[in-house]
Amino acid sequence: MTQFDFGDVWLVGAGPGDPDLLTRKAERLIREATVVFYDALVGEGVLALIPPHVRMEAVGKRSGRHSKDQASIDRLIVEAALSGDKVVRLKGGDPAIFARANEELQACRAEGIRVSICPGITAASAAAADLGVSLTLRGLARKLVFITAHSKNGATLDLDWKSLADQDATLAVYMGKAAAPTVSRKLIEAGLPVDTPVALVENASLGNGTRIVTRLDLLGLTANAALTDKPAIILIGHALGESATSSFCGPPQRLAEGTPAFRCFPEHR
Amino acid sequence: MTQFDFGDVWLVGAGPGDPDLLTRKAERLIREATVVFYDALVGEGVLALIPPHVRMEAVGKRSGRHSKDQASIDRLIVEAALSGDKVVRLKGGDPAIFARANEELQACRAEGIRVSICPGITAASAAAADLGVSLTLRGLARKLVFITAHSKNGATLDLDWKSLADQDATLAVYMGKAAAPTVSRKLIEAGLPVDTPVALVENASLGNGTRIVTRLDLLGLTANAALTDKPAIILIGHALGESATSSFCGPPQRLAEGTPAFRCFPEHR
Ligand SMILES: C[S@@+](CC[C@H](N)C(=O)[O-])C[C@H]1O[C@@H](n2cnc3c(N)ncnc32)[C@H](O)[C@@H]1O
Ligand SMILES: C[S@@+](CC[C@H](N)C(=O)[O-])C[C@H]1O[C@@H](n2cnc3c(N)ncnc32)[C@H](O)[C@@H]1O
Repeated sequence: MTQFDFGDVWLVGAGPGDPDLLTRKAERLIREATVVFYDALVGEGVLALIPPHVRMEAVGKRSGRHSKDQASIDRLIVEAALSGDKVVRLKGGDPAIFARANEELQACRAEGIRVSICPGITAASAAAADLGVSLTLRGLARKLVFITAHSKNGATLDLDWKSLADQDATLAVYMGKAAAPTVSRKLIEAGLPVDTPVALVENASLGNGTRIVTRLDLLGLTANAALTDKPAIILIGHALGESATSSFCGPPQRLAEGTPAFRCFPEHR
Repeated sequence: MTQFDFGDVWLVGAGPGDPDLLTRKAERLIREATVVFYDALVGEGVLALIPPHVRMEAVGKRSGRHSKDQASIDRLIVEAALSGDKVVRLKGGDPAIFARANEELQACRAEGIRVSICPGITAASAAAADLGVSLTLRGLARKLVFITAHSKNGATLDLDWKSLADQDATLAVYMGKAAAPTVSRKLIEAGLPVDTPVALVENASLGNGTRIVTRLDLLGLTANAALTDKPAIILIGHALGESATSSFCGPPQRLAEGTPAFRCFPEHR
């Protein structure tokens, strides 16, 4: 099943960063590869598992920084496969979620290259685990919605706020740091209560980033004040209100490592 | 980080079934446990990794079959932890997604038990990997929505079809086998085109279940005709149209193991 012949390409999910959250299959594939093309998002601990004889090539992409465009990455992968490499394309999280996998799959298929996917733990799952919450709640958070809020050069976010402002849902916002104030304002305008619980998690699974639980109207402020340049995910909805072990209700709390999340919003039920 | 003391509880994601899709961390936790409470959804290959000296208790739940109710499961976990066990609660997929994790977290916290989550690969990611598709497409499938379509005893599904019928989204329907005809009809009534690509994947990652790509108006028929009693996920949206290597356009195709998915719907672009 995990067969890896010369000339094959595997798109491999590296998970959120912690090498322990790599799957056994991903670990095997990166050890069997002859070349690994990796994203800026892939954890250092994961990269450290790649044996020294495997060629490693960083291919970008971190918003704002100089990096290869998608077409160049597609070409690198295809050329390596055609030249007989066992190619791993290592991507942060799950390759099937906001990771341009389609472009790479199609580029390979157009050349008759066999290309497969090894799934990975996506950032939303890792952040929920860090916070000690479920992303869904029976009866209360029955829907889980993943969006990106990445807008190029400050272009307005073209999202359907009305359907996103759903009190029955948990919303996971990928690439949403810069747009956090807009996300907060738009969701409130569209009807989501100002005290809807919100969590911001940087470097999920790595235990070295800001983790904050706050409320929707403080999201923009909090993101601006507290987030650094590490990858961050924003989770919004009732479900985040369940991370609490304390019922502190004040300004956003920076969560010390290893401690459970504090609430900074009133009780919901 | 993965510290596991006596009296602790870990909710551990077992992933979709293939033991190779277990994370390194999950593998370590199930080896360190003194007792493992596991779901019917947990793969046999995963259970086989649990050492013989670890107590194993099946706690259900498979719709339609007799199994323990949630409160009894909560109690079993709490009692084991209070009696000094190292408790693993092993769940199919990711514990934070449609898995009643909140009930178990709260039950433990109410007793002062330290409880943590180890995330897992969720069924949607595994199914996408099996099909060789991305769940999101830049510009075309910019939103990923997870819902359950489990209705107790044929009760009507109380879902917001209008917002679910979103051509910009990929919809992943968990527990949707029985409701597939309703899902199809309701989404079409709400405006989703009849030829929207749909995939049905049974036993994702295990390579021994039906995998079909069809179109929305044939979903109900296909699910009834082709699915067995294995766990199945339904994926709906443009993104599923990209699994194709052939442009066959006829009745639903059962996909032979290892072969890429056939399309059975017309070109979209
Ligand atoms: C291009 S997307 C890739 C998503 C990835 N394929 C996944 O499934 O997690 C990059 C975004 O994922 C999120 N992300 C990835 N890793 C993360 C981590 N360890 N902690 C928090 N967010 C993360 C951030 O929102 C980041 O901006
Ligand atoms: C109670 S939910 C649990 C979901 C799980 N926590 C996850 O993240 O995948 C059970 C449903 O998950 C889906 N599922 C779980 N494992 C699956 C697999 N290997 N293949 C297809 N669907 C699966 C099915 O829709 C099943 O009815």
